[in-house]
Amino acid sequence: MKWHFYLILFFLIFNQRTLFGEPVNISEKTRLCLDCHATYTPGIVEDWKKSLHSQTTPKEALKKAELERRVSNPDIPGDLTEIVVGCYECHGLNTRKHKDSFDHFYTQINVIVTPSDCRTCHSIEVDQYSMGMKAFAVENLEKNPVYSLLVETIISRKEYKNQKIANTPATESTKKETCFACHGTTVVVKGMKNITAGEMDLTVPDLAGFPNQGVGRVNPDGSKGSCTSCHTRHGFTLKEARKPYTCGQCHLDPDVPAYPVYKESKHGNIFYSRGDQWDFEAVPWVVGKNFSAPTCSGCHNSLIINTDGNVVANRSHDFGARIWIRIFGLIYSHPHPAHGATHGIRNAAGLPLPTTFDNIPASSYLLTTEQSSLRMASMTNVCKMCHSSSWVGSHFDKFQNTLGETNRMVLTSTELLQRAWKLKLAEPDNPFNETIEGLWIRQWLFYANSIRYASAMTGAQDYATFKNGWWELSQNIQTMDDWIRMNEKID
Amino acid sequence: MKWHFYLILFFLIFNQRTLFGEPVNISEKTRLCLDCHATYTPGIVEDWKKSLHSQTTPKEALKKAELERRVSNPDIPGDLTEIVVGCYECHGLNTRKHKDSFDHFYTQINVIVTPSDCRTCHSIEVDQYSMGMKAFAVENLEKNPVYSLLVETIISRKEYKNQKIANTPATESTKKETCFACHGTTVVVKGMKNITAGEMDLTVPDLAGFPNQGVGRVNPDGSKGSCTSCHTRHGFTLKEARKPYTCGQCHLDPDVPAYPVYKESKHGNIFYSRGDQWDFEAVPWVVGKNFSAPTCSGCHNSLIINTDGNVVANRSHDFGARIWIRIFGLIYSHPHPAHGATHGIRNAAGLPLPTTFDNIPASSYLLTTEQSSLRMASMTNVCKMCHSSSWVGSHFDKFQNTLGETNRMVLTSTELLQRAWKLKLAEPDNPFNETIEGLWIRQWLFYANSIRYASAMTGAQDYATFKNGWWELSQNIQTMDDWIRMNEKID
Amino acid sequence: MKWHFYLILFFLIFNQRTLFGEPVNISEKTRLCLDCHATYTPGIVEDWKKSLHSQTTPKEALKKAELERRVSNPDIPGDLTEIVVGCYECHGLNTRKHKDSFDHFYTQINVIVTPSDCRTCHSIEVDQYSMGMKAFAVENLEKNPVYSLLVETIISRKEYKNQKIANTPATESTKKETCFACHGTTVVVKGMKNITAGEMDLTVPDLAGFPNQGVGRVNPDGSKGSCTSCHTRHGFTLKEARKPYTCGQCHLDPDVPAYPVYKESKHGNIFYSRGDQWDFEAVPWVVGKNFSAPTCSGCHNSLIINTDGNVVANRSHDFGARIWIRIFGLIYSHPHPAHGATHGIRNAAGLPLPTTFDNIPASSYLLTTEQSSLRMASMTNVCKMCHSSSWVGSHFDKFQNTLGETNRMVLTSTELLQRAWKLKLAEPDNPFNETIEGLWIRQWLFYANSIRYASAMTGAQDYATFKNGWWELSQNIQTMDDWIRMNEKID
Repeated sequence: MKWHFYLILFFLIFNQRTLFGEPVNISEKTRLCLDCHATYTPGIVEDWKKSLHSQTTPKEALKKAELERRVSNPDIPGDLTEIVVGCYECHGLNTRKHKDSFDHFYTQINVIVTPSDCRTCHSIEVDQYSMGMKAFAVENLEKNPVYSLLVETIISRKEYKNQKIANTPATESTKKETCFACHGTTVVVKGMKNITAGEMDLTVPDLAGFPNQGVGRVNPDGSKGSCTSCHTRHGFTLKEARKPYTCGQCHLDPDVPAYPVYKESKHGNIFYSRGDQWDFEAVPWVVGKNFSAPTCSGCHNSLIINTDGNVVANRSHDFGARIWIRIFGLIYSHPHPAHGATHGIRNAAGLPLPTTFDNIPASSYLLTTEQSSLRMASMTNVCKMCHSSSWVGSHFDKFQNTLGETNRMVLTSTELLQRAWKLKLAEPDNPFNETIEGLWIRQWLFYANSIRYASAMTGAQDYATFKNGWWELSQNIQTMDDWIRMNEKID
Repeated sequence: MKWHFYLILFFLIFNQRTLFGEPVNISEKTRLCLDCHATYTPGIVEDWKKSLHSQTTPKEALKKAELERRVSNPDIPGDLTEIVVGCYECHGLNTRKHKDSFDHFYTQINVIVTPSDCRTCHSIEVDQYSMGMKAFAVENLEKNPVYSLLVETIISRKEYKNQKIANTPATESTKKETCFACHGTTVVVKGMKNITAGEMDLTVPDLAGFPNQGVGRVNPDGSKGSCTSCHTRHGFTLKEARKPYTCGQCHLDPDVPAYPVYKESKHGNIFYSRGDQWDFEAVPWVVGKNFSAPTCSGCHNSLIINTDGNVVANRSHDFGARIWIRIFGLIYSHPHPAHGATHGIRNAAGLPLPTTFDNIPASSYLLTTEQSSLRMASMTNVCKMCHSSSWVGSHFDKFQNTLGETNRMVLTSTELLQRAWKLKLAEPDNPFNETIEGLWIRQWLFYANSIRYASAMTGAQDYATFKNGWWELSQNIQTMDDWIRMNEKID
Repeated sequence: MKWHFYLILFFLIFNQRTLFGEPVNISEKTRLCLDCHATYTPGIVEDWKKSLHSQTTPKEALKKAELERRVSNPDIPGDLTEIVVGCYECHGLNTRKHKDSFDHFYTQINVIVTPSDCRTCHSIEVDQYSMGMKAFAVENLEKNPVYSLLVETIISRKEYKNQKIANTPATESTKKETCFACHGTTVVVKGMKNITAGEMDLTVPDLAGFPNQGVGRVNPDGSKGSCTSCHTRHGFTLKEARKPYTCGQCHLDPDVPAYPVYKESKHGNIFYSRGDQWDFEAVPWVVGKNFSAPTCSGCHNSLIINTDGNVVANRSHDFGARIWIRIFGLIYSHPHPAHGATHGIRNAAGLPLPTTFDNIPASSYLLTTEQSSLRMASMTNVCKMCHSSSWVGSHFDKFQNTLGETNRMVLTSTELLQRAWKLKLAEPDNPFNETIEGLWIRQWLFYANSIRYASAMTGAQDYATFKNGWWELSQNIQTMDDWIRMNEKID
């Protein structure tokens, strides 16, 4: 609070519009932010300067033809329409709803810009997102006791006491950087704290569960999600969201190997070899013209048109909108859940799981055949831009066969586990914490999963075969059987 | 067959040459294809439009200086020389030989364009390819009972019945997406089937073993191979074939880690850091000028000249043309097989394997020392464009030592396996399906292999050391010994 | 020594300055090198032609403003200042100190250009490097008996004799391509050897331990290190050194997963998606303007300034200069060693390790709290270019918690190992060579390490969770306990 304080005051009073040569339609408040932050956090200021946010007003953005438009709310509040989207326009929104709101040099701002704030201009995207599974990624872990037990079994601290393994609950920090790094945290404002930034003393909100950019983050305004998971602040480029590296932050082997499978697929081959000449910023995205093979977003959520100008696939920020099968077996693959909040599912055994141990699906919580067909049609529309209907049909027939085969291989391992339980070689109270239970988890969470992803995404035969594929799926059954045989003899 | 049918008829009758503004020397038949497919499959049409095929006639292509030429048949049939290479020019070739030929809107075309078809212009490339191991990738798996047993052991469905693991043969779909995804399938025309494409009802060939782009695919015209493995339709860019991502579809860890080893090598380091400024389309490829470090194709098959204009290495589509050692141990590394069809090999024990269990090579089926020297010279010519003769010599001396060391480590594991068999802890009838046999497979298929690839390709020390390298190679011997000791005591 | 010899003689006598149209200020000696090597090793000649070395004289390089300067010795010897840095200018330096010096067509040159040679112009960089741990990478392995034992246990040849595993010491070739490929070899001149290069017979130094580019290589002039580890000859581009692929040659999973962790982090996501538009050659490197997210060198060693022109971080070639914690646990993570030569450390048990088995640090050999704070400040200065002080503080609090949690998990595995030793299920004489010891090594070398790297580098949650993370860390404890229980019953 020394001379810097007076410098701030000086800016407050004598702030000149053109001080840094920015475009003229920057708001006074944002200009004030920039006056200091251009010096203190130049990385994000420069990034913002290169962004569309700093170069376009919502009014101009709304003038574009419908398919080219990147803002979806036609009724953006009037005070925001004729200025570019700067620091204050986002961090100053809805401050009353934000528990992380605070006074920063006489201006009330929020630490975290949430989906509810982004909704001011991008309403359709946020509304779609809020329906999908990503928005429920936190509560689906926390409110499902089976999943919570798995999480805790993995990340709790283990100590060796009296020749036994004793568990201590996982710390908040560990949670934040493991499961909940992707799923998201619940951000809680614990109070205020004093910090020193540069040479200034500041009082700022003290947040638990932050930093975090998990897809289901529960924000201090009650909203769910984190747009920055895929649209990194403060460039918010489409280029980034459309490239597979972005999805590759979370969708990784061994559990959800979508990105590594893509890398080894024919589609990935084409992207990596020739993608440097594609247009990743074009809206809408013209198949063949702007890109020659799909990235993740191409198949799953981008607005795609053909060269005749007709819509092939609508944009959706519900990332399950074109998905009818849930590859990720829990413990078997099954029709996609009908609603994003999966913790409400109850299977025939009363457990919050989409199938029973014997693979009976909890059908009333899952997509109907009709709903599945509609989603499949929206996906295959994209496939057919390059592939014949016959090709696409054969591809998905093969995928369907793979679901059956891998589910059967999981069932075999489940039967082996049940045998071990019956022989009292392991205890079923916690099905996740003993040696043979660990082998069983690998079967569905790593191996069966990898094969299904490889099957679904045209290629990545290595993931179907040796790398977490059939080799492991078969070896693991042998290992489980061997472990039971040995322990049966020893006991 | 509603209004679309009449639209097609309309095009058949009134088709105008310049409808879509394409180059004028497109054939009438191809123009007709484009009339519909520009709407129905714009992805591949746009890709083709960017290709050399759509921009050059064979006549023009043949006019180039010999080293710059991309077509190798000087006697291309006259009716093809003055039109660009369009849809019909490839899909309409040799229809009588093609069992997958069918009538598509009054035109006889083939579903699959095969090496025999590509041979019309690219004769030398196809002839070279047909001699190499890739062309025999299907029959080398299927006609070798040892390999077939390994394949079936890995990908068969396992069920748990009466406390025993029971096998059900692998499905065709599983085969197609695992081992045979890289090796290739035998494509069989099962008959015709009715499909709906867009709003049209079509009758098309019903193919088993398709889609597939495996390198040894047996095609409906009897030819072997799939050019699209590396030259993806319908851009067929040299850029793609020359980049390592293409080889990286199949040459992956844990079994054949050429691509991941390249990524971590010094050569890979240079490619990834500076390759954005290289010319991947230049023919011939001028070392130093067009590229500063080799990619896979640089070492193994591209036509390379030096800055004086002299040929350093001839182009070859027999991808073993510069390889004298077979790194991939079965179960030991050995001189490269003399012929691509390896299923005819018989070792001293009468098995179709290039060495015996005790590492005696089946020399009469393998390259002679003289043949090996010639291949080595063709490879080292490339090395010497950047490295001194002394450097290159030391490098390959090191590699030779590694072959000996890793073979010895495999032999140790073979002796451990034989010990287990002798003690009746496992049965040698199928050497691939029990726990200790799985460990033994890892030794040669994963660990020894990884070290040899890392040794051969200058760098990727991680694959030689911790990642599937010596760490695993040594640990695995310990684990095998431990397993024998424990089971010996239990039994 | 046939006609090529006379050709060389011809060049020696009639050498024309402008023969190949190179810039005029190339030295006579270098011109002579180029006359032949443009033909014999065009790859490296072309690479050099594109480099700054071939385009700038040291005199011009010294004229630049201080922050833009790439040479740091203001007193470069006069005979070098007005010619570009060509072949002879580097290979002809300090030949009397070089045991690898030899007469090459009447010119005395050295095979290896060493840090001492590069020091002629880049003195500060070499001096910084010589203080850091990289320069001691060879002796830290060789002079530390604990590490030497680990190395030998992993890479020695194992044979099966009389039903026991017998070790034969690792070959020099194996050493050179495994541990010492990254750490570096000791290059020894064994004598001279005759080779044939092209059609010429040459006599050249016969080097043991070469080729090798390990970071601590002991060179034939007594110097330590290999600048070409990161600045590949003969382009020596900053672009390459600043891209993560370069560090990714060695900093790999499972033991030091810095590069794979970066790839999956948010920073990596931004680099891979948008890095094609950054300026990797700018000196100094302007945050936000030249790059939008850090690469390895951004955080660890580059000279970075902000958009106001102020220095954010000084360049350092001691790669530990901004590191205060040693993540890489041996066997626990601990304050960074105060000196690069860690083999001199003695812990409370008298062992050359930075902590005891029970995690008591050898504090007198490690950074003090004060020294740590200074290094942390130099790192967080970089973080704060994009992140708030509060964000950065929370991030490193989380990291600190992770160090404690993972150290505790390692301690548990150490206690399990000690239990096995007590029960005589394993022998503590060599703590690295038995089954349960291998499991224990995995705990600290692979799993705890991976989690710490993921924690430190903002993201890569997969490495903290499933991929060598908490999943393995917890499973491994279970496996160790299970192994002890089974063997206790058997014995």
